[in-house]
Amino acid sequence: MDCLHEEEKWTRDEINKAQLVRLQNTVEQALKAPYYAKKLKEAKINASTIKSLDDLKKIPFTTKDDLRAGYPDAFLATPRSEIVRLHASSGTTGTPTVICHTQDDINSWADLMARCMYMVGIRREDSFQNMAGYGLFTGGLGIHYGAERLGCMTIPAGAGNTRRQLKFIQDFKVKAVHILPSYALHIGEKLKEDGFDPRELPAKIALIGAEPHTEEARQRIEHLLGLRAFNSYGLSEMNGPGVAFECIAQNGLHVWEDAYIVEIIDPKTLEPVKDGEIGELVFTTLCRKGMPILRYRTRDLSRFINGSCVCGREHRRIDRILGRSDDMLIIKGCNFYPMQVEQVLLSFPQVGQNYVLELIKEGSIDQLQVKVEINPAFFEEEKKEDMRVLHQLQRNIAERLKDELLFTPKVDLVEANSLPKSEGKAIRVVDKRKD
Amino acid sequence: MDCLHEEEKWTRDEINKAQLVRLQNTVEQALKAPYYAKKLKEAKINASTIKSLDDLKKIPFTTKDDLRAGYPDAFLATPRSEIVRLHASSGTTGTPTVICHTQDDINSWADLMARCMYMVGIRREDSFQNMAGYGLFTGGLGIHYGAERLGCMTIPAGAGNTRRQLKFIQDFKVKAVHILPSYALHIGEKLKEDGFDPRELPAKIALIGAEPHTEEARQRIEHLLGLRAFNSYGLSEMNGPGVAFECIAQNGLHVWEDAYIVEIIDPKTLEPVKDGEIGELVFTTLCRKGMPILRYRTRDLSRFINGSCVCGREHRRIDRILGRSDDMLIIKGCNFYPMQVEQVLLSFPQVGQNYVLELIKEGSIDQLQVKVEINPAFFEEEKKEDMRVLHQLQRNIAERLKDELLFTPKVDLVEANSLPKSEGKAIRVVDKRKD
Ligand SMILES: [Zn+2]
Ligand SMILES: [Zn+2]
Repeated sequence: MDCLHEEEKWTRDEINKAQLVRLQNTVEQALKAPYYAKKLKEAKINASTIKSLDDLKKIPFTTKDDLRAGYPDAFLATPRSEIVRLHASSGTTGTPTVICHTQDDINSWADLMARCMYMVGIRREDSFQNMAGYGLFTGGLGIHYGAERLGCMTIPAGAGNTRRQLKFIQDFKVKAVHILPSYALHIGEKLKEDGFDPRELPAKIALIGAEPHTEEARQRIEHLLGLRAFNSYGLSEMNGPGVAFECIAQNGLHVWEDAYIVEIIDPKTLEPVKDGEIGELVFTTLCRKGMPILRYRTRDLSRFINGSCVCGREHRRIDRILGRSDDMLIIKGCNFYPMQVEQVLLSFPQVGQNYVLELIKEGSIDQLQVKVEINPAFFEEEKKEDMRVLHQLQRNIAERLKDELLFTPKVDLVEANSLPKSEGKAIRVVDKRKD
Repeated sequence: MDCLHEEEKWTRDEINKAQLVRLQNTVEQALKAPYYAKKLKEAKINASTIKSLDDLKKIPFTTKDDLRAGYPDAFLATPRSEIVRLHASSGTTGTPTVICHTQDDINSWADLMARCMYMVGIRREDSFQNMAGYGLFTGGLGIHYGAERLGCMTIPAGAGNTRRQLKFIQDFKVKAVHILPSYALHIGEKLKEDGFDPRELPAKIALIGAEPHTEEARQRIEHLLGLRAFNSYGLSEMNGPGVAFECIAQNGLHVWEDAYIVEIIDPKTLEPVKDGEIGELVFTTLCRKGMPILRYRTRDLSRFINGSCVCGREHRRIDRILGRSDDMLIIKGCNFYPMQVEQVLLSFPQVGQNYVLELIKEGSIDQLQVKVEINPAFFEEEKKEDMRVLHQLQRNIAERLKDELLFTPKVDLVEANSLPKSEGKAIRVVDKRKD
């Protein structure tokens, strides 16, 4: 395996052994923070409680509300003079979620990020353009420090100024970019409109993350720009980017288990989901000194991808982010997430690029109405035939959805381009129950 | 002297000796760049030409147009694989001015910046908030790396979001900020409007730069916010911030002469101005590997401040930026800069906060009309008296201006608040010659 760090080659056994020792150290370190000193004492937990990785379950969860309530100091596990960096989560008003890092924390974060970039083929001699906003948002400086650690020529382009972004990509033969998926699609379409083939740009690798996007959006980005796009996952509470990253197999994101313990739980019961089932990601830092965080509930939905990866890494893989735990829907007593519907739909080649989930009332009972566009090629071929083929497709989709959701939704096949478009975004849900 | 680096304690002799060796090395390094290989060969210059610092004069100037014409590669003196960072000058359309840095370049830039911050009283254990935009603009990452080098808790707040900026300053007891002078004034006034005393903020040190501002604007910032504001000078072609910086004496900015050679020239004759006279700053890098630049004409106006500094540093001091060489005016055959007029006006205690320079026609001859507001306190006291006192003041100002400019402008004393305001900006010049 051609990789940057020895830790990437660890066997499951080596990972587990290291995790146990690091978890014990992390609990010890966390006890220096006022919040955990109280919380862990109440739960009667200290480093010696953790005799095996199974004992992780004894530790209470930490939520975003806990972090907010602990602002600004309650999670600090070192004297403030040891802190060299502060980051805050974006997009919130009111009390921000703030994470403080020591120099060691910053260094190991940069290492993890450099490892991700090396894994997808970026090398020291390559030019790298960081097209994400800098500042408190961790996507900017997080990726920047990783590229610098790798020794790339790093262009801190930031967000905006598309014309200059494109000029630099061409003039400095930029091999890899970090870009929001929606911005990648925007740039690609814009270039095509201007009569330029975006596939001729020198960029051959894109790191995409920070906003949820579908597999289909990724493939469109790759096709439009003539590059390979790799999914990046992170959140400021766990440093930022560099928590989990796709390898060149592009089949799930390896969680760096030498630095994080990952769990997936049912957000209702708080118990682990069955392997492969969708649930809420929960992370524990294993290397952080400034602000260790135990069992952090991310509200991000994913699932484990089982089996061994062709790249040889044994660090567990998670699926792309499939939504937020707050997105969970309940119809006819069954819990499900919109992304589960999308995954069923995408498994049918006859299904087009757009679909919408409508929540409707049938009398007094809630029901799910799935409207899905049919691939134009398929539609035109078939329309001379009788409608039986379409009815059969509709029945097949409904049946597969029943297998997944445990109830039978209504399925409506519609013509291509008849539904409103939603660029690169998660699947749309429209609640019509109040109409 | 309590300072971060030994170089700060160097005597004039030690500075000169180091400069000579470093200049020779820099010429040798520059010859690896295609632009200088050609340019220096034409001028028959190589490292052995430089036998004393006086030989600097033999080296041709480099201009912004040269840098543009050399885009993207002609100034590169190392293989591109050694480059880890690219920055570009802001505010230009068309071909950008791009500077490429090796890891050593980035490190020594961070050292210089950390030295500036330590010099004005910022310490490892302090919190530091960087309120400048990040990205290609060097003010963001340049200051960020300096603060990190010093080991401060660095808050990469970036520009904007005033409410959050203020929250962090208070909640993390931020001792020092990097802020645009106009933004500092804006925040101070805003807080006062909201009934809050901005002097109660914990911030006690402000680094201000990036836009020209007067001494009076600095004093207003200090008074309004209850802190000390230190003038920062730099330009992306010479890395960015960290070229010259005020010490606690606040009487001129020390140029870090272990890293730069500074000259001040007459932009017309290209000869050195007399000591203490205003001219265009010219810099030569002494430590840069990626893109050494020789005798760069900055177009920024300043002058040397003579005599020894109370802080003990022998690194030469320059005045705050007094305008752009493009601002030069010619009246009655005499060249002068608006800032020279301001300096004369400010030496009169009776002169108020606002003045305007009007360029007018007297028949076919160009003339300068100086309209200046009189301090209200002075005006009210005197108005019961006869007008002789005012006439005397007017004559005194005109005479002092003649000494400075070598011609006699018209001087008009006007009432306070009768001229349009110009917040924290360089003095206004209105050309009425075409009316
Ligand atoms: Zn893999
Ligand atoms: Zn001094």
